[in-house]
Amino acid sequence: MRVTYHKELDSISDGLVEMARLTGSAIGRATTALLDADVEFAESVISGDERIDQLQRDLEEKAIALLARQQPVATDLRVVVTSLRISADLERSGDLAQHLAKLARMRFPERAVPGDLHRTILEMGQLAQRLMAQAAEVLITKDVDAALKLERDDDRMDELHREVFHHLLDERWKHGVETAVDVTLAGRYYERFADHAVSVARGVVYLVTGEHADELPPPPVVVPDGPA
Amino acid sequence: MRVTYHKELDSISDGLVEMARLTGSAIGRATTALLDADVEFAESVISGDERIDQLQRDLEEKAIALLARQQPVATDLRVVVTSLRISADLERSGDLAQHLAKLARMRFPERAVPGDLHRTILEMGQLAQRLMAQAAEVLITKDVDAALKLERDDDRMDELHREVFHHLLDERWKHGVETAVDVTLAGRYYERFADHAVSVARGVVYLVTGEHADELPPPPVVVPDGPA
Repeated sequence: MRVTYHKELDSISDGLVEMARLTGSAIGRATTALLDADVEFAESVISGDERIDQLQRDLEEKAIALLARQQPVATDLRVVVTSLRISADLERSGDLAQHLAKLARMRFPERAVPGDLHRTILEMGQLAQRLMAQAAEVLITKDVDAALKLERDDDRMDELHREVFHHLLDERWKHGVETAVDVTLAGRYYERFADHAVSVARGVVYLVTGEHADELPPPPVVVPDGPA
Repeated sequence: MRVTYHKELDSISDGLVEMARLTGSAIGRATTALLDADVEFAESVISGDERIDQLQRDLEEKAIALLARQQPVATDLRVVVTSLRISADLERSGDLAQHLAKLARMRFPERAVPGDLHRTILEMGQLAQRLMAQAAEVLITKDVDAALKLERDDDRMDELHREVFHHLLDERWKHGVETAVDVTLAGRYYERFADHAVSVARGVVYLVTGEHADELPPPPVVVPDGPA
């Protein structure tokens, strides 16, 4: 009985890691699609989202079946309930990557992102993919410090998001309203994607400690021992 | 034991209805703040969001405690797990109302929404508030047909959202990029708010039928017997 139980719990955890990997890959490909006006990449993200949605449905069914059959208490219960919430974050992240890919497809063969924002959007895309890779790692290692670090790394996304607005509202903006609308939405999608990665990490903190991340003391500042 | 159990379940359900009422009220007030540049209304939405967040935390604690102590199975289990998901939708709706209020506050004493979009944004705000009121009612009545109707009513929100873009991208747009950015974000917030109201209703469908809303046959078309 306990063996089956732990097998089922592992299978849920594996499903979450797989979802995080797929959404991380999706945001990377969506960024390429957006910056290079690559419609095939865009299509792969758009059609690939169904797989992420399916994983979430499978995971939910497994979690509910496990709650019903195994009646977990305390920590195990927290794991199952938190996994449900994490899966919702990941499903939503996949949607946001898909929205970005749809922006790229809509403007094809033009580029949705003008040249003077290329670097900023590239950095947002890379950071989003990295945050999700960190979230996937945290799902595997259950490392609370790494989870809390994710929250600080997300600060950079907020800075980049502000850069986008700053750029848009600069009087030298010369790309017109359509591009401004695209860029506003793209910026928002990246920022939300990163929020969901942070939320996954927060879920792991809760899962391990039983405390919500915002109730924990801030992690100690450590001197880095090498290139990050 | 069963009496306590049903009392606890009722208390969770009451909490959801209260959250839906608060977010419905918040989106209504945020719309007024946005259209009238009323900064006091905006502040009330911004500070009021804490109450919605607190309700969600309380509700989560109750749900997890109930799962641990009462070990519900089948339908009851579905109710508790679905309630957790619904509470997340409602918490997020509150955030979106708060984002709208912050837009209003940021532009004060100017109006964030230009006159020629006043009617469209007003309709989006009213529809959002109405959809959430329907969702609250569905939470009380558990009426599956009413829940499915919400999904169709949300189609109007998508139309209005398209209207906003159409307007923004019209070459006669004369309000500049800053206003275009504000209106793009506002449109997106309303559309997401409505999606969450639909998601609440879908949750109720799942709760009652055990089927996800998108697996159900479409509801029969009925001839209305009076003014809608």
